[in-house]
Amino acid sequence: MTPARIVVVPGKGVVPADTPILTADDLGVLRGDGIFETMHVRGGRPWLLDEHLDRMARSAARMGLALPPRAELVDLAEQACAEWPPGVEGALRLVCTRGPESGATGQDPRPGGAAPVTLFATLSPVGQASIEARRVGLAVVTATLGFAAGARTDAPWLLGGVKSLSYAVNMASQRWAAEQGADDVLWVSSDGYALEAPTATLVWLSGGTLCTVPAGTTGILPGTTARWLLDHADRLGWTAAERMVTPAELARVDGAWLVSSVRGVAAIRTLDGAALAADPERTARITALLGY
Amino acid sequence: MTPARIVVVPGKGVVPADTPILTADDLGVLRGDGIFETMHVRGGRPWLLDEHLDRMARSAARMGLALPPRAELVDLAEQACAEWPPGVEGALRLVCTRGPESGATGQDPRPGGAAPVTLFATLSPVGQASIEARRVGLAVVTATLGFAAGARTDAPWLLGGVKSLSYAVNMASQRWAAEQGADDVLWVSSDGYALEAPTATLVWLSGGTLCTVPAGTTGILPGTTARWLLDHADRLGWTAAERMVTPAELARVDGAWLVSSVRGVAAIRTLDGAALAADPERTARITALLGY
Repeated sequence: MTPARIVVVPGKGVVPADTPILTADDLGVLRGDGIFETMHVRGGRPWLLDEHLDRMARSAARMGLALPPRAELVDLAEQACAEWPPGVEGALRLVCTRGPESGATGQDPRPGGAAPVTLFATLSPVGQASIEARRVGLAVVTATLGFAAGARTDAPWLLGGVKSLSYAVNMASQRWAAEQGADDVLWVSSDGYALEAPTATLVWLSGGTLCTVPAGTTGILPGTTARWLLDHADRLGWTAAERMVTPAELARVDGAWLVSSVRGVAAIRTLDGAALAADPERTARITALLGY
Repeated sequence: MTPARIVVVPGKGVVPADTPILTADDLGVLRGDGIFETMHVRGGRPWLLDEHLDRMARSAARMGLALPPRAELVDLAEQACAEWPPGVEGALRLVCTRGPESGATGQDPRPGGAAPVTLFATLSPVGQASIEARRVGLAVVTATLGFAAGARTDAPWLLGGVKSLSYAVNMASQRWAAEQGADDVLWVSSDGYALEAPTATLVWLSGGTLCTVPAGTTGILPGTTARWLLDHADRLGWTAAERMVTPAELARVDGAWLVSSVRGVAAIRTLDGAALAADPERTARITALLGY
């Protein structure tokens, strides 16, 4: 039987999923102050683990967070996967918060001096909605992110490119989409460029070139799965590029997708109610290349 | 002796502060998806409790969060204060998260159907840095918030005016200020207006009028303590107004302060290194009116 959720805590191993593991003063909950990664578990192993751990290390550096050594994170992932049925798709989360406020304010007992972070992993089945979206695609609505495309580039405190736990706006954006009868949101900059989805990367095909939005100049999260896809676009006979694009331009491309680690590849079927080019065979080839 | 931290959980009462109370899949930590309020405890009671609970209810409505009934929140606050030495200043936090993801995805056992939220209260002493800031004031640096002043007004998914748990940018802004050798940040809109501090409201005095930034048209958090201060400005011989202001204009006013529930009133001593008008007697009168 597939477990509903596996939870792994350093030093304790797998604990029952309903075990409370965070104190009331954990800065992860009080301030959304921490980082995470979500990976697709297939054949009993996390896909692109190294790439996700690289991104997590970059997030930690930008947040000034003392992420534990990589071997400890790998160990946590392996402990979770060891309990998982290899034939079932899973979503593995690694979470690292800044730890309890009481620790962060100088009561750290460790000789190193750094305040102790809170680290844990969870592993749960991929939801039915994600699996369905790969097949039928998504109705997507645009919504402003409020920023100009370049607003976060020179303002590191705005945490561009950081996968932090502060996802309240991401979740509110998705709730707003659901209220509009849509499946997901495409965030647009105040100067009119498509940026990213709250939990996925925008990818589109234009004249034989598979494109995504540049992360470095826009502050979006660099998508791990989308990066791998563009790096292997030649296997589908396409070149790859980073470009800026507007929603109006997306209406004229040869296909657009939202790509993320757990949902995989989902075609944007409609954008603000207007049908986009969506060739099911193309989506199937991308999906097969990515192994979903 | 003053406790380091009191933690109160519904149905359990006061629990030891190091008791884990949140599961690994609590959306408060996984997504910063929840709301909070922080109140000043004086004479053994939270100040402006009603006003804070009003704001919490508004935050909950904007987040689509099933905040428990007001009586339950009051009860939680009272349980925390009952254990607190009346002569000691405290910081009382009420926190409500969207609860465990497993509950939110339809496994709620309650007949009502709504997914169960996670609710708790913490009470801890006011930090020495806050008490010191009331006396000596603050060196403040400006930092862009990336948004234009009006960007959040027609975009409810950006959660303007909501006191959510997603404070990673607030905390990163304060860390950045510390790296500059400053005590706090004043966020400025991309179109040049002073907005608010990451955990405090901007108030300034100009020609006998005590001013603050309008919350409704800017998406800043409406400050509870600042609101009370402006509503009672006549006791100090001043009128009150909501206005937009630029950092350059702040350099010429008769005094500027950051106002918040726990730190109380702290004069902006310098803004980006330049001294502001700071009459200690004026700050003392405001502080006395607010009862800090």
